[in-house]
Amino acid sequence: MTSNLLDQIREPNDIRKIPREQYGALAQEIREFLIEKVGENGGHLASNLGIVELTMALHLVMTFPRDKIVWDVGHQAYVHKILTGRKDGFDNLRQFEGLSGFPKRTESRCDAFGTGHGSTSVSAALGLAAARDLRGGHEKICAVIGDGALSGGMAYEALNNAARRQKNFVIILNDNTMSISKNVGGMATYLAKVRTNPRYKALKVNVENLLTKIPKVGWDMAVYIKNQKEAIKKLAIPNMLFEDMGLTYIGPIDGHDVIQMRDALRGAFLLEEPVIVHVVTKKGKGYPFAEQNPSKFHGIGPFDPETGEPTFCGGTTWTQVFAEALLAEARQNPKVCAITAAMASGTGVDEFEKEFPERTFDVGIAEEHAVTFAAGLAAAGYRPAVAIYSTFLQRAYDQILHDTALQRLPVFFALDRAGFVAHDGETHQGIYDLSYLNTIPRMTVCAPANEKELREMVHLGLTQKEGPFAVRYPRGAACTETFGEDVPVEKGKAQVVAKGRDVTLIALGRMTERAARVREVLQEEDLDVGLINARFLKPLDEEAILAAAAESRLIVTLEDNERTGGFGEKVTVLLKRKKQDCDVLVCAYPETYLPHGDTTSVESKYHMDTESIVNKIFLRLSK
Amino acid sequence: MTSNLLDQIREPNDIRKIPREQYGALAQEIREFLIEKVGENGGHLASNLGIVELTMALHLVMTFPRDKIVWDVGHQAYVHKILTGRKDGFDNLRQFEGLSGFPKRTESRCDAFGTGHGSTSVSAALGLAAARDLRGGHEKICAVIGDGALSGGMAYEALNNAARRQKNFVIILNDNTMSISKNVGGMATYLAKVRTNPRYKALKVNVENLLTKIPKVGWDMAVYIKNQKEAIKKLAIPNMLFEDMGLTYIGPIDGHDVIQMRDALRGAFLLEEPVIVHVVTKKGKGYPFAEQNPSKFHGIGPFDPETGEPTFCGGTTWTQVFAEALLAEARQNPKVCAITAAMASGTGVDEFEKEFPERTFDVGIAEEHAVTFAAGLAAAGYRPAVAIYSTFLQRAYDQILHDTALQRLPVFFALDRAGFVAHDGETHQGIYDLSYLNTIPRMTVCAPANEKELREMVHLGLTQKEGPFAVRYPRGAACTETFGEDVPVEKGKAQVVAKGRDVTLIALGRMTERAARVREVLQEEDLDVGLINARFLKPLDEEAILAAAAESRLIVTLEDNERTGGFGEKVTVLLKRKKQDCDVLVCAYPETYLPHGDTTSVESKYHMDTESIVNKIFLRLSK
Repeated sequence: MTSNLLDQIREPNDIRKIPREQYGALAQEIREFLIEKVGENGGHLASNLGIVELTMALHLVMTFPRDKIVWDVGHQAYVHKILTGRKDGFDNLRQFEGLSGFPKRTESRCDAFGTGHGSTSVSAALGLAAARDLRGGHEKICAVIGDGALSGGMAYEALNNAARRQKNFVIILNDNTMSISKNVGGMATYLAKVRTNPRYKALKVNVENLLTKIPKVGWDMAVYIKNQKEAIKKLAIPNMLFEDMGLTYIGPIDGHDVIQMRDALRGAFLLEEPVIVHVVTKKGKGYPFAEQNPSKFHGIGPFDPETGEPTFCGGTTWTQVFAEALLAEARQNPKVCAITAAMASGTGVDEFEKEFPERTFDVGIAEEHAVTFAAGLAAAGYRPAVAIYSTFLQRAYDQILHDTALQRLPVFFALDRAGFVAHDGETHQGIYDLSYLNTIPRMTVCAPANEKELREMVHLGLTQKEGPFAVRYPRGAACTETFGEDVPVEKGKAQVVAKGRDVTLIALGRMTERAARVREVLQEEDLDVGLINARFLKPLDEEAILAAAAESRLIVTLEDNERTGGFGEKVTVLLKRKKQDCDVLVCAYPETYLPHGDTTSVESKYHMDTESIVNKIFLRLSK
Repeated sequence: MTSNLLDQIREPNDIRKIPREQYGALAQEIREFLIEKVGENGGHLASNLGIVELTMALHLVMTFPRDKIVWDVGHQAYVHKILTGRKDGFDNLRQFEGLSGFPKRTESRCDAFGTGHGSTSVSAALGLAAARDLRGGHEKICAVIGDGALSGGMAYEALNNAARRQKNFVIILNDNTMSISKNVGGMATYLAKVRTNPRYKALKVNVENLLTKIPKVGWDMAVYIKNQKEAIKKLAIPNMLFEDMGLTYIGPIDGHDVIQMRDALRGAFLLEEPVIVHVVTKKGKGYPFAEQNPSKFHGIGPFDPETGEPTFCGGTTWTQVFAEALLAEARQNPKVCAITAAMASGTGVDEFEKEFPERTFDVGIAEEHAVTFAAGLAAAGYRPAVAIYSTFLQRAYDQILHDTALQRLPVFFALDRAGFVAHDGETHQGIYDLSYLNTIPRMTVCAPANEKELREMVHLGLTQKEGPFAVRYPRGAACTETFGEDVPVEKGKAQVVAKGRDVTLIALGRMTERAARVREVLQEEDLDVGLINARFLKPLDEEAILAAAAESRLIVTLEDNERTGGFGEKVTVLLKRKKQDCDVLVCAYPETYLPHGDTTSVESKYHMDTESIVNKIFLRLSK
C-alpha cells in the first residue's frame, strides 16, 4: 500500500499541511489503511469508514490537544487516532499492550474522555464545557454522537441540560441510520423524516451558497448564521425537534464533503449557544462489503480485505446455543418474548425475530427501558427474556433491583459476553456481573459449564414461578465437554463431579472446563482432587460446598469475575460463617479493569491460566 | 370533617355513583381528607392535591382492576387509593404494616405496577400494553407521568419506543412545572412555551366545543379527533415535539376540570395509536400553604393543617452538616462544584446554590447524566460533589463504574438517606449502597459516626488526588456524640475507640452510636468489650480489624445495609483469608426489601435494635 499523504501525518494537527485538493486522496488512503489494519487485527470497521471525512473536518477546525472531542461509544475514534499521530500503533490495534480500540485518556492527551458504552458523550462533554466556562477558557469542545446512541436516555438527559448553556457547545449528530443493528423508535423515524425531506437537497445547496459567500472565519459569520437560522429552519424542516428543545440546529449536512463540514463546523463553534450539527454519513462508506452489510462489519474479527470474509471461524458459540434454546422455549410457550437493546445479532435475538417477530422487541440502546418494559410484560403474565451483554446490563442495575426483583417478577436475563472479553478491553469487561447481581434480593444467578447446561438453564429460568433469573455466559465457542455423570440442572444445586481429600475445585460456569484441566495436572502429582461444578452463584449450594470443605484440606474457587463480591468471596463467607476450618483459595480477577488483548496474555498476566492456578494451589498446600 | 360523598366510595368504580354536579364537592372532600391524613401521618401532599380531578377523570373513564394505570414515581397515587376503596387505610398511611405511600401490587389488584423511582411508568405501561396486544385484550392502559419525571432519560427511551406501537396506548403528562424542586432543562422550557402560548386559551375553548358537540362514546369520536388532530395542532402549537417523535398529542387541557378531562380521555382511549394527553395541573391545589410552597409540602412529616407548620422538629440533620461542610470547602477552593438531580433542597445543595449559583448544577431527574457530567468536570480539573439519595444513585451504577472510576476521576459522591429510610419504604431503602459501591474498583467508601467526621470526610473526599470517593449518611438528625479520643479521619483508617478481650464491636457510620449503647449493656454484664469505629468500608482498615480479632473471642460487625456484599461480609472474608479463627457475628439487614414504618418497629422486626443485638451476642458467646 502506498501512503504518501498519510506518511505526512505524524503529529496532531498535521492534517493542516495537506492541501485542500488532496482531501479526497487522503480520505481514500485512510480507508485503505483502516481496511488493511482491521482486516489483520479485527476491530470496528464500518463506523470508522463512515466517519473519515467528518473526522478530517473536525481536525481542520480544531487544534489538539487544546480542543476536545468526546466520541460517543468510542469505537469510531480510529481516524481520530490516525490524525493525532497514532498511525503506527495500528499494527497492534486491540492487541495486548497495543493500541486500544477506544479513546483513552491514558493513551493520548488528544483523547479528552474515555468512552465505550453508548450515550455518554454529551454528558461528559458538557462537564468539560462547564469547567471551561467556569475557568473562562476558550477551547472548542464537542461531542460526536451517532443516531443510534441518541436512543439512549442518558443522551436525552444531556441534551435537556445542554439546552440551558449560554456559551458555545457543539453536538455533532453522526446520522448513519444505524446503531449496531438497524436503528429503531420515534427519534429514528423523526430523523428519517428530516433526511428524506424534499427540501434537503435544496438546503444543501443553500448552506453551501451561504457558507461560501461569507467570510470564512470570524464573528460576522456567526452572526450571519444566527440570523439565517430562522430562515434555514423554515426552509428545511417544518417540525424541528431539536429547536423545540432549545438547541440551535444546523443541517442536515453531507457527511462525506469535507469542505462543507469544515465550514459548517467553523460557524457552529462561533455561536455562543448550544448547537447541534446534523451530519448524514454512510456506515461502511467506501468498502462495498461493509456498505452492504454494516452490521457484519460493525465489530469484526480478522478478515480478508479482498473477500470481506473472516479469516477463521470457531465452533458453535454460546450465543447460538442460547438463541436455539430460547426458540425451543418459545415454540412450547406462547408467552415467551425476547427483548434486546440494539444487540439483536450479537445476542442471537435476530434468529428469534425471524420466527416470532411479534414477540421480539429491540428497544434500541436503552437498557433501562428494556428491563422495566420486560417487568411490565412479566406483570401481565408473559415470560420475557432480556438478552443484553454483561457490561451493558449493569446500566439497568436499578431497574432490576427496583422494578423487577422487588415485585418478584419472572424476568429472564441472558448476559452474553460475561467474564473476560478480550480485545474490546476495559470498558466492555463482563467481570462485574456476579458481584452486582449478587447484591440484588430475590435474584437467581447461574452460569453454565457447557452448552447442555445453558439449554437447561434457559428452560429453568423461563419456567420458574416468580422472581428474576439470570444466566451469564462468555463470548466465543461454547464448551461441549461434559463433566462427570449427567445430572440435570436444578435450581440452587451444584453438580458434584468428584470428591477429593486433598483439594476440591469449585468452579462456576466456563471455569469448570479450566478446573478440569487443573485437576488433571494435580492428579498427575498424586493429589486426590475433587471437582464441583457450582452452576449457581445464587442460591448457593451450601450443602455441597460444606460437605466438600469437611472432606478436603483446601477449597479452591474458580470464576471469571472480579474477586470482590463474587463467587469465591461468597463461598469464603459461607465457610467462615459455618466455622468450617478448611482453607480456601479464591481464583478470580483482581478488583480492577482488565486491559484489552488476547485471552492467553491477559489470563497469564492475572494468573488465571491453568499453570498459574496450579502453582497457586501448590504454594497454598505447602504452607 | 363531614364526608358524605367520600363515604359512598367503598369499592373500586364507586365514583360512578356520584352525580356529575357533585364532582366539585367530591374533589373538595378529597382535598380535606388528604390534608387531614397527611397532617397526621406525614406523606406526599402537594402532588396529590394537584392530581385530584385528574384521578377522578381517570376513574370515570376506566374500570378497575381490569384497566391499568401506572403512576410514575407513585407518591401521587393517594387519590387513586381513596377511589379504589382504601380510604380507611389512611389512618395508618406509611405506618408500620399500614397503607404504603406508593402503589403496590401486593396491596391492591388496582395497583397495576409498583413504582417509587422516577421515569419508569411509560416503560412498565408499555410492557403491560405489549402483553395486552399479544393476548388480543382490550383493557385500557395508561401511564401518568409528571413533567419532572420527563427529564429522566428512561422516560425518553420509553417515549421513543411508544411511538412504534400501533394500538392504543395513552400517556398522561401531568404538567405542574415542578418535579420536587423547580423543573429544569430544555424539555421544561418547551413545555412552558406550549403552556404560555397565547392560543392555549383559545384551544381550551375549542376542545371543549368539539368534545361537547360530538357523541360521547364510540368510534365516531375517535375518528373525529383523529381528523381534527392536524387542525388542532396548527391551531395550538407551532412546534410539536411529541408529534415529531410520532406520538399523537392532545392538549394542553385544564387539569382541574373533571368533565373536560373525562371527555378528552375517552377520546384518547379510542385511538389505535400512541397518544400523549397533556394536562396542566397546579401542585398543592386547594391548600394555600402548599400552593405557595409546593417543595415544602412535597414529602412532609406530620404538620398542623391550620398553620401548615410541622408538628415537631429534630436537631441539625446530616444533610445540613454536609451542606455546611461543602460550602466551607467551596469557599477555600474555587474548583469545588455541586451537582444534584432534582433534589436541591433534600440534599442541602440549595444552600450551596445561594452562595455559588454558577458552580451549582441541578440536572433534573437524571442521575446518569449527573454522574458522567461530574466526571467531565473532574476530567477538566474541577472537584464536583454529586449529592444524590442513596436509592437514586444506584441508577448511575454504570456511570460510576465505567465513566468515573475507570478513569480514576476525583468525583465526590454524597449519598444522603443511606440505610433504613422509614416511611417511604421498600422502593426508597438506602441499604444497598455499601454492597454496590463495594464492587467498583478504585472507589473509596466511608460513613461518618458523627457530624464532625462527616465534615472531615467531605474535606478528605474533595482533596483526594484521584479516584471517586463516596460518603454515605442517613436521613434525620446528625449524631453529635463523640467516641473515645479525637482521632482525625484518615483514608482507610478506623478509629479504635477501645480494645476488648471478650468482644470487639466494629461499626460503620451511624451504627457506631448503636454499638456504643450495645457496649454499655455488655459491660454491665462484666464483659470486656472493644469498640472500633470503622469509618471506611473501602479501603478497609485490615490492620485494626485483624488486631482486634487476635485479641477478642468474638468480632461483631454493625451496619445499616443489607448483609450480602456489605461491610460485615467484607470483614468476614478478611478474617477467613487471614486464617483468623476469631468468631464473627454480622449484624446487618437481611437481603430483602425493608417495609415502610417507624424505625423502632422495623429495627425490632429485623433484630437491629440494641436489645436484639445484645441478645444475639449473648447467644453467640454461649455457643
